[in-house]
Amino acid sequence: MVIAGVGLIGGSLGLVARRRGLVGEVVGFGRGEENLKVALERGAVDRYSLDPAKAAENADLVMLAVPVGAMRDVAKAMLAHAARDAIVIDAGSVKQAVIATVEPLVTPPRAFVGCHPIAGTEHSGAAHAFPELFEGHRCILTPTERTDPDAMARVRRLWEGVGMTVDVLTPDLHDRLLALVSHLPHVVAWALIGAIEREKVEGRDPLSYSGGGLRDTTRIASSDPRMWRDVFLANQPELVRCLDAFEAALRRLRELIERGDGDGIEAELSRLRAVRTRLAAP
Amino acid sequence: MVIAGVGLIGGSLGLVARRRGLVGEVVGFGRGEENLKVALERGAVDRYSLDPAKAAENADLVMLAVPVGAMRDVAKAMLAHAARDAIVIDAGSVKQAVIATVEPLVTPPRAFVGCHPIAGTEHSGAAHAFPELFEGHRCILTPTERTDPDAMARVRRLWEGVGMTVDVLTPDLHDRLLALVSHLPHVVAWALIGAIEREKVEGRDPLSYSGGGLRDTTRIASSDPRMWRDVFLANQPELVRCLDAFEAALRRLRELIERGDGDGIEAELSRLRAVRTRLAAP
Repeated sequence: MVIAGVGLIGGSLGLVARRRGLVGEVVGFGRGEENLKVALERGAVDRYSLDPAKAAENADLVMLAVPVGAMRDVAKAMLAHAARDAIVIDAGSVKQAVIATVEPLVTPPRAFVGCHPIAGTEHSGAAHAFPELFEGHRCILTPTERTDPDAMARVRRLWEGVGMTVDVLTPDLHDRLLALVSHLPHVVAWALIGAIEREKVEGRDPLSYSGGGLRDTTRIASSDPRMWRDVFLANQPELVRCLDAFEAALRRLRELIERGDGDGIEAELSRLRAVRTRLAAP
Repeated sequence: MVIAGVGLIGGSLGLVARRRGLVGEVVGFGRGEENLKVALERGAVDRYSLDPAKAAENADLVMLAVPVGAMRDVAKAMLAHAARDAIVIDAGSVKQAVIATVEPLVTPPRAFVGCHPIAGTEHSGAAHAFPELFEGHRCILTPTERTDPDAMARVRRLWEGVGMTVDVLTPDLHDRLLALVSHLPHVVAWALIGAIEREKVEGRDPLSYSGGGLRDTTRIASSDPRMWRDVFLANQPELVRCLDAFEAALRRLRELIERGDGDGIEAELSRLRAVRTRLAAP
């Protein structure tokens, strides 16, 4: 397996796949040698190369764990050198855009299977990778009419092998669901920081007065800007629709607050809290 | 000490104050006997009463840990029976409104000191109280020109005794800072749930596709609706101002996304991420 982008996801996959013997040799590729060295030292890869062609030589499995916007070029550079029946997978948080750019590059007997392992933290880089990252989480596969069933079955076994539950969605449905539960919260978390950082209250830094609430609410605002830039761009129309829905929900609460409608506020918060409780269950 | 409202804050204060011998007897008051029984069993109070007058009898220290909107009535009912030089404190997340309603009830030799221990979780009730809740967190005291310096010093020692760092702010400054870093994020977290719960994506529940990001972003949407209704109402003008700031920050990000301005998005996310990093430091 060659892993393009040995960050949190790629590095963790390398760690667990090597430990569990799910693949043969694991080769890392990336732009930054520092990070690749860390990946090597931590056992996420057997070796690495800064050259995508060399890294991918004879690879049976090509894992694209780079930002979505970089996948096409990396896949192109690698596919000239991977095994003739290589399976290509990705870990992108959007699927339609990845499929549109990568799938056409992968011609039989090679096969492409779009994947989204829903696991991660706000940290990036091989230094933060850990083999339990995927355990108990969901991996969504988004096959198209072109997807080879045998490749699909093998990819499913890989993700199950690292501890994930595999779910199958259409690329469109994936992008709509994830815009709502992942892409939107990222924009919101960054906007919260944006609102707070502009306010200086008599020379004091408001952030220093925050408790666990703000810390958790904005945890994902520490995520990788490059990765999320690409996600926002790639899923733009759907994300904008979600921003509309969010703004409407915010307006409903704001109106209750502006009206001083105590009963209305309490009823709405109680209802929303009950919805939130569904999330808290493990 | 009599604790009115033996919930997360009141219960935790009782637990740690009793363990460390910071006060004499601790008496609990509340509306729900079930919760008071839990408080008693868990050692948060020595005894309890459902009658505020009985609970407060001869109390030297009256702790108002009920929702902000209930403080006035509880204080009134208790003050007829507390010690003649009783100190009254509160744990409300807004200070101007509490001072306006409670301070006039407390006449010398009694003294009122407005307090806001910035500690908490999304859980409520004595069952979730724990003695380490305050450890290492900040408690803001908001004295007014009427505040007795001796009472202030004693209250400071109490909060330091439970492990907090004490900071002094004007009530106005407190309410402006907390609107930004606490009240606003609560509205936003609830609005996020509101946006998501209305969307059914082809019969699937979007929430079941969420990862740790949404869970953390909306953790505080599991907070007590009654308590937060009162906070939103009591700090309404300042909260609305913060909502304006948030909407402006959201609009800036939205415009970059709608324009497809990749460089702009990345620069903005990078900048905001750096601000957020200040929070992550312990």
